[in-house]
Amino acid sequence: MSSVSSSPASASPADVTRIHRAAVLGLGLIGGSMLQVLRHSGIEVVGYDTDPDAVDAASAAGYPVAPSDAAAVHGADLVVLAMPLPQVRDALRSVAAHLPPGTLLTDVGTLKVPVAAAVREFAPHATFVGGHPLAGVEDTGWAAADPLLFRDCPWALVLDEDATDAQLVAWLRLAGLVCDLGAKPVPTTAAAQDSAVARVIGLPHVLAEALALTGLAGGPLGLTLAAGSYRSGSRVARTRPELVTSWCDGNRALTEALDDAIAHLTEARAALDDDRSILPLAVAGHDARVNWEHRRFEPVEPAPTASALLELGRSGGWLTALLRDDDGLRLLGMRPV
Amino acid sequence: MSSVSSSPASASPADVTRIHRAAVLGLGLIGGSMLQVLRHSGIEVVGYDTDPDAVDAASAAGYPVAPSDAAAVHGADLVVLAMPLPQVRDALRSVAAHLPPGTLLTDVGTLKVPVAAAVREFAPHATFVGGHPLAGVEDTGWAAADPLLFRDCPWALVLDEDATDAQLVAWLRLAGLVCDLGAKPVPTTAAAQDSAVARVIGLPHVLAEALALTGLAGGPLGLTLAAGSYRSGSRVARTRPELVTSWCDGNRALTEALDDAIAHLTEARAALDDDRSILPLAVAGHDARVNWEHRRFEPVEPAPTASALLELGRSGGWLTALLRDDDGLRLLGMRPV
Repeated sequence: MSSVSSSPASASPADVTRIHRAAVLGLGLIGGSMLQVLRHSGIEVVGYDTDPDAVDAASAAGYPVAPSDAAAVHGADLVVLAMPLPQVRDALRSVAAHLPPGTLLTDVGTLKVPVAAAVREFAPHATFVGGHPLAGVEDTGWAAADPLLFRDCPWALVLDEDATDAQLVAWLRLAGLVCDLGAKPVPTTAAAQDSAVARVIGLPHVLAEALALTGLAGGPLGLTLAAGSYRSGSRVARTRPELVTSWCDGNRALTEALDDAIAHLTEARAALDDDRSILPLAVAGHDARVNWEHRRFEPVEPAPTASALLELGRSGGWLTALLRDDDGLRLLGMRPV
Repeated sequence: MSSVSSSPASASPADVTRIHRAAVLGLGLIGGSMLQVLRHSGIEVVGYDTDPDAVDAASAAGYPVAPSDAAAVHGADLVVLAMPLPQVRDALRSVAAHLPPGTLLTDVGTLKVPVAAAVREFAPHATFVGGHPLAGVEDTGWAAADPLLFRDCPWALVLDEDATDAQLVAWLRLAGLVCDLGAKPVPTTAAAQDSAVARVIGLPHVLAEALALTGLAGGPLGLTLAAGSYRSGSRVARTRPELVTSWCDGNRALTEALDDAIAHLTEARAALDDDRSILPLAVAGHDARVNWEHRRFEPVEPAPTASALLELGRSGGWLTALLRDDDGLRLLGMRPV
């Protein structure tokens, strides 16, 4: 840790050390993929899961699996909570007393506010940096795990505006690892993250459920005529319902997103009822989608401070690399033009 | 045509003749693909388009293109209206006087009620069977045309409950051709077709537009975190807005579909506001989508009557082949178990 505390928080390159040993608790799609890619990047890994089938599968694939969470985290400088959100509180309660001092603790869940609250309650002394890799999850379990799952995927990493030096160093250590895995660390607060994913994860899932159901209500003829637009629009309704609820329940920002969506649909309905065209909605939606695809980015070098990093995240940017050179720590990133 | 009129309408195998020469008016994605697959199935074809670029592209690819719609339909026993819906009325007005007697006229548009109305107005003496191949349309124009576009795709073909012998024969001729192209003719009335596509084409497009817009409203952070569910949920917002409106505007059944979808979203919003789970919606949506994917089908042999065919379509079934044998005309089909 920095010996001199300054304002704002800053990090010395010497503090931003590499991860040598990682424990991954939970060996489903995300945890299993983490275990595989971490080992592939030269880190000593050990896994743990409460499900004997997952343990057997990981062991059979040649990965070390510990007999308990306490044994898994022994000697680890990174502990990854990769169990489903409803199990995070129990996992924290179980493992908190066994976390070695200075161990970096992270998670991989969709919502960051509830996990931060659980850490404050059950492991208040942990050095915790919440994480959320935006990786596909249509298939689940160890069998679907893939060390390439995180290539080029955005990975929200939680940082507070008033982060201490130690918190900033922990954030940068984890961001450096995420870069090494080929993913894109996005600095954000927990509240901003959850608000953003309400619109781009929660809402698309609720809309997909509504579409799947409303299509069904049209009867067998409609189900036979259902083609590409129904298929892609309802695709994520294939997700296990308990996962969908873990991404939506309790996220108050989702109510605002739903209000916005309902307003658009209500206006379209009124237009049809008045024999007006839905063209304004179609043009605006088309432009939004196409502009999203065509976003262009430029390189930036943010300062290694919480405020500079959070400004980068707010503007839609992310880090691409952490370089240590003679001038100290250089952060490379990209942001929308 | 059958010389003896009976009740219900029936078709003699001798009347259900093959198509020998087809004119395709409009050489975009669907028309261009039709021109290509029709020639590939041994039919003499000629195309026509008001756009010189489409004419040049089709000619350069070795397809005959007529200098006028009147020249194109000369001698044709099938005429395909493949221009966008807003141009159908003008096209009908222009070509009606030139249709050879007995020519089978069809179209390929998404909504069947407005086209039927235009035919009644501008070509009341035509033997018209409205059609709607459920083929992907994210890319458009001759450049995207593909003779395999229709493989295994449902193809709604409009039949009236009170069809005459001649109308039934025309329907069966076109259904036989659609089977030959590798697609699945689905018997339906125009009103039932438009009601069904409101839920599985119109609604998914309106939801995609609303999602694309609502995601955008979350700002740059959300656009960077947007991943698989936003991408698939908003995919069809990439469709040209004028196409979307041609599939939605004027289809009153879409207001009911929107009401149903809005009700699901409103209930989800209320659940979130009350700190309840959205699990009931997630379970119902998941089951609807998965049951759709897992539908199973059984072979059937419907009678060649309008009522038997329409019952097949209502139950979610389609024809797979028309066989002429010693016993007469046999229709083979599939329907959901």
